[in-house]
Amino acid sequence: MKHVVVVGGGVAAKGFLSSAVAIHSDVKYTFIRKTEFGPVPCGIPYAFGTLDSPMDNISPDTGILKGGAELIIDEVIEIDSKEKNITLKSNKKLNYDKLVMAVGSEPIVPPFPGLELENILTIEKDLNVVTKQKEIIKNSKNIVIVGGGFIGVELADEIKNFEGKNVTIIELARNVLSAAFDVKYCQAVEDILKHKNINVITKLGVSEFKGNGKVEEVVLSNGQIVAADMVFLSIGAKPLIKLGEMAGLETNPRAGIITDAYGYTSNSDILAIGDCSSKIDFFSGKGSGIKLASVAAREGRIAALNLFGKVMPESPLGVTSLFSTCVHGEYFAATGMTIEQLEKSNTLFNTVDITTVDKHPTTLPNAKKIEGTFIFAKETNIILGAQLKGSVQVAELINFLGYAVQNKASAYELYTLNYASHPMGTPSPNKTIAHMAATALLKKIK
Amino acid sequence: MKHVVVVGGGVAAKGFLSSAVAIHSDVKYTFIRKTEFGPVPCGIPYAFGTLDSPMDNISPDTGILKGGAELIIDEVIEIDSKEKNITLKSNKKLNYDKLVMAVGSEPIVPPFPGLELENILTIEKDLNVVTKQKEIIKNSKNIVIVGGGFIGVELADEIKNFEGKNVTIIELARNVLSAAFDVKYCQAVEDILKHKNINVITKLGVSEFKGNGKVEEVVLSNGQIVAADMVFLSIGAKPLIKLGEMAGLETNPRAGIITDAYGYTSNSDILAIGDCSSKIDFFSGKGSGIKLASVAAREGRIAALNLFGKVMPESPLGVTSLFSTCVHGEYFAATGMTIEQLEKSNTLFNTVDITTVDKHPTTLPNAKKIEGTFIFAKETNIILGAQLKGSVQVAELINFLGYAVQNKASAYELYTLNYASHPMGTPSPNKTIAHMAATALLKKIK
Repeated sequence: MKHVVVVGGGVAAKGFLSSAVAIHSDVKYTFIRKTEFGPVPCGIPYAFGTLDSPMDNISPDTGILKGGAELIIDEVIEIDSKEKNITLKSNKKLNYDKLVMAVGSEPIVPPFPGLELENILTIEKDLNVVTKQKEIIKNSKNIVIVGGGFIGVELADEIKNFEGKNVTIIELARNVLSAAFDVKYCQAVEDILKHKNINVITKLGVSEFKGNGKVEEVVLSNGQIVAADMVFLSIGAKPLIKLGEMAGLETNPRAGIITDAYGYTSNSDILAIGDCSSKIDFFSGKGSGIKLASVAAREGRIAALNLFGKVMPESPLGVTSLFSTCVHGEYFAATGMTIEQLEKSNTLFNTVDITTVDKHPTTLPNAKKIEGTFIFAKETNIILGAQLKGSVQVAELINFLGYAVQNKASAYELYTLNYASHPMGTPSPNKTIAHMAATALLKKIK
Repeated sequence: MKHVVVVGGGVAAKGFLSSAVAIHSDVKYTFIRKTEFGPVPCGIPYAFGTLDSPMDNISPDTGILKGGAELIIDEVIEIDSKEKNITLKSNKKLNYDKLVMAVGSEPIVPPFPGLELENILTIEKDLNVVTKQKEIIKNSKNIVIVGGGFIGVELADEIKNFEGKNVTIIELARNVLSAAFDVKYCQAVEDILKHKNINVITKLGVSEFKGNGKVEEVVLSNGQIVAADMVFLSIGAKPLIKLGEMAGLETNPRAGIITDAYGYTSNSDILAIGDCSSKIDFFSGKGSGIKLASVAAREGRIAALNLFGKVMPESPLGVTSLFSTCVHGEYFAATGMTIEQLEKSNTLFNTVDITTVDKHPTTLPNAKKIEGTFIFAKETNIILGAQLKGSVQVAELINFLGYAVQNKASAYELYTLNYASHPMGTPSPNKTIAHMAATALLKKIK
């Protein structure tokens, strides 16, 4: 029986294993993880707030274990890619037919002066660490979050729900969430945060941390000082490539372990998936720096399907933005390219803005406005991107639009599709967001 | 300036007009409706319950009127399709360049004995009627709904929210909603209704109504008697074709005014859209009897786009089921074909059942289970249909799946797509419903 060894036990590993045990059942699977349990990575901000305990944020292994995969709690210390075996810290040796690296990423920590001070934390995918950090939050008044990406914003939103916390986000770019959204939506997020008395500082970086043993102050690049009992660094993540180097694979410190679109590395018996592996952008065909659980899950299942020979008729599509978040109960979502990105890439496009309501008639209780910006290519009228703001429906609406982007749907296709509508769950049939966007575009280009 | 006259002011007319005023701006538009206001048709069940007043269920004309269309409250009594003019009840005559018939349908009322009794009502798209009917409901204790389609079920659900009402649904078919769902989901709907103390009678028809002036009893085909202070007939609708006949168009009493996929009738200056016009089924290419607001809206916009010459590269796709409903807070949705329909049409297929949760981790507050059944073609593995049950997210999820059906997506495509996930709004990235379904299918066909 073939033996497939997976190093890692996070989202990519689980995406891979849950698919592989279903599709290739006559195979022995072993996965090696440092810890007994792994968290739901996107759930970490909620482990600090909404969830009673960080332990409520465990990502269960049940399905995979029931599928027959074996978990070894250990660490890989050596890979012999010629003999096709690995050595664990416990000195155990495992032979493999296929080795799958799903070791993830680590937080980016720029060399700020004062980093050695206590209570400067990073997001760690380790429930014990999260539990300890939650204690530190509890005992802190002034909390500074450096980096206003999704994690930073969600963390601020969650922590501010506790009484008596001064929360500050520091973001170097023009806005929070600027990698995912154009100004209009970023500002809407910032407005919600500010309305919640979260201090949002943008276009300024950190120059150093100061304190006596413990961090006490964050000094910004303009000299401004923000008081801090603790600091969360949520600046981003870089791929862990040590294991790839150990196996003699082609790697790149920024991109990760170099793979093709199926997850195959430069050694055809070793695959790499998730944050540790390189990605190709759907639009440009160049490298993509997106590190997301949904991307990792997808790479896991693509690798699983094509593990013993490629069964896909053509190379899987590259990675495209497909994001959603929730800020104080308001949902934001985006797919494809932003206006800013398109301008930088010299792509010609048209944009339209749309407003609808998630129920109809709009007099129904709890009916909520949905706003959207849609971007279409200039001559082909193919959808290039969309950004949404509204009720929880937005979190699935974006998957429809993400599919349209990946399917290279034109405005005419979105205009003409059949859609479902219902008073209690969607806009009115004459206000479906995708066809409204298409109509607005047709009006614009006439 | 060209003059386009629309007869009707419901969903199809508005779908047409809102698109036409956007796309062809150098045109004069007139629409003729019998009443000053029209209701949101799918909102009618909620006008009897959730909404404070039926008047909260007005479908606004604002957008169309602002776009420059003129509303005439009147009725068409004559059409001269040679001279291209119409005569209104007020004796007013209007010339047209294009005439659009969007006159809808009327309730099907089988010739039950006792139909002349008082308080036997049908669903009417007239707010004054709805207002009067709401009074009758208020004053009735025993309410019988004949026909367990979407309207019948939603009506029962809404009316039962009032105290002291005995509500009975009588459905001739195997289950309520049997045209849209397979047994599993129909039974789930019936369980919710029964749990709410709604009396659900299936596989039995009405043989007559009895009473003294007012209806008092409904006699079923097996002799069983159900007490009734009022009866709602929600058996379905048939197209209004009188106007088509008046204009000498090709018509069919079941299918309606015969049109091509763009809405053109047998007279190239007259279009027909919505419930009054014929439809082609996406799968079979044969006639479709689906009468839905969403279909009417779509036909309106397709007709608008192609009004002065067809601009679509190919004939628009046929109508495919895309339904959602909400029964006592639980959402149900379906697209494509059901198992029952596929068996009847001799199509070979595989089905898989899936369960996921609409938030992750599943320990988050208000996380709700989503169940789905997916149907794929046997050899091509193309998605043919899906049925869902779960939270409000289901109402937009079905639009994603409906797009997949219309796009003839294979399980491999659904498996490989990029998806968005977020703790507060979607299943975990390894539990996205579409890729879970695809994985289950790949497992099944291995």
